[in-house]
Amino acid sequence: MGRWEGDAAGRLREAAMRLYAERGYEQTTVADIASEAGLTARTFFRHFADKREVLFSGSEILLERMVEALDAVRPGQGPMRAVAAALDAAAVMLGRDPSFSRRRQSLIDASAELRERELIKMATIGAALADGLRRRGVPAADASLAAEAGIAVFRVAWEQWLAGPPEADLAGIMRATLERLSTVTTALSPEAADG
Amino acid sequence: MGRWEGDAAGRLREAAMRLYAERGYEQTTVADIASEAGLTARTFFRHFADKREVLFSGSEILLERMVEALDAVRPGQGPMRAVAAALDAAAVMLGRDPSFSRRRQSLIDASAELRERELIKMATIGAALADGLRRRGVPAADASLAAEAGIAVFRVAWEQWLAGPPEADLAGIMRATLERLSTVTTALSPEAADG
Repeated sequence: MGRWEGDAAGRLREAAMRLYAERGYEQTTVADIASEAGLTARTFFRHFADKREVLFSGSEILLERMVEALDAVRPGQGPMRAVAAALDAAAVMLGRDPSFSRRRQSLIDASAELRERELIKMATIGAALADGLRRRGVPAADASLAAEAGIAVFRVAWEQWLAGPPEADLAGIMRATLERLSTVTTALSPEAADG
Repeated sequence: MGRWEGDAAGRLREAAMRLYAERGYEQTTVADIASEAGLTARTFFRHFADKREVLFSGSEILLERMVEALDAVRPGQGPMRAVAAALDAAAVMLGRDPSFSRRRQSLIDASAELRERELIKMATIGAALADGLRRRGVPAADASLAAEAGIAVFRVAWEQWLAGPPEADLAGIMRATLERLSTVTTALSPEAADG
């Protein structure tokens, strides 16, 4: 039995992803998805606000897990340490099923509307992390910078993970990318800036 | 004479910004804008694809200037040095008129659609900077990281500049924010990550 067959939301998601891949996201209607899943449009709307949300229903949980992890880092640890914990939590949640993630990503890449939705998701996560850092007492600008830097790491690590072998470890790639960011950004010293 | 009165595009932009502020972006039509500017809708569409683009018509030039500046950094300089040059070019172009920028930003902040468009703009600039870094021979992941880090700096510096006094210097704030990013990200050492 497939990953989602046990529940209506899962059947709808699977049907939607099949149709988006076959005929394109723009050309697929909610009625098509419900019919493909052997369910009604009414059932669809009990689970998803619209056809776009089928691919984003995990976003809120992801955000919550990341913020919880950030909040759980003990006081006094620097902002990037807290962001690193949030990235670890994201990797635990997202890193289990690369083949599902690859399918989802290829659908998103193929649609301007879905790419926009993904940008909004990442911006929302970034804003929530920045808020969390401010609650920890990090000055506002540092909080924004650390959160946005964390989102940059997330994006780059995510791409690398999807492009890598099936056994690649998302959490490890996130950590290595975070280290790499530090190396890349410190290669700019004040005196060198005039050269 | 005001900043834009000499040309149709400028009159249309000024009329649009006035109406967006008065009645809201969503409630304003192209016909309203043209009428407010004493011009026809046809003239509007000669200058702008739609009412959203009135606030984004400078985006392509901004992107070009930033990429040109990045390309002009001499070979062998690290990726963040090239990104710093791109940010300097952006500051030169955008830093002249804080009161216009503040008005524009408050319109964008008030509309979900405009905030999305702004996210797309920044993502497009980030992708162009990453492409430019790859052309310079920077490995793909480092190029993405440095470009995204540059966008993070841009966003945070931009907010600080808009919140600051009228005489604040955008280029200086960009450079200080870039330095700050380096400080914030290096506060994560490998051994500390287990603590």
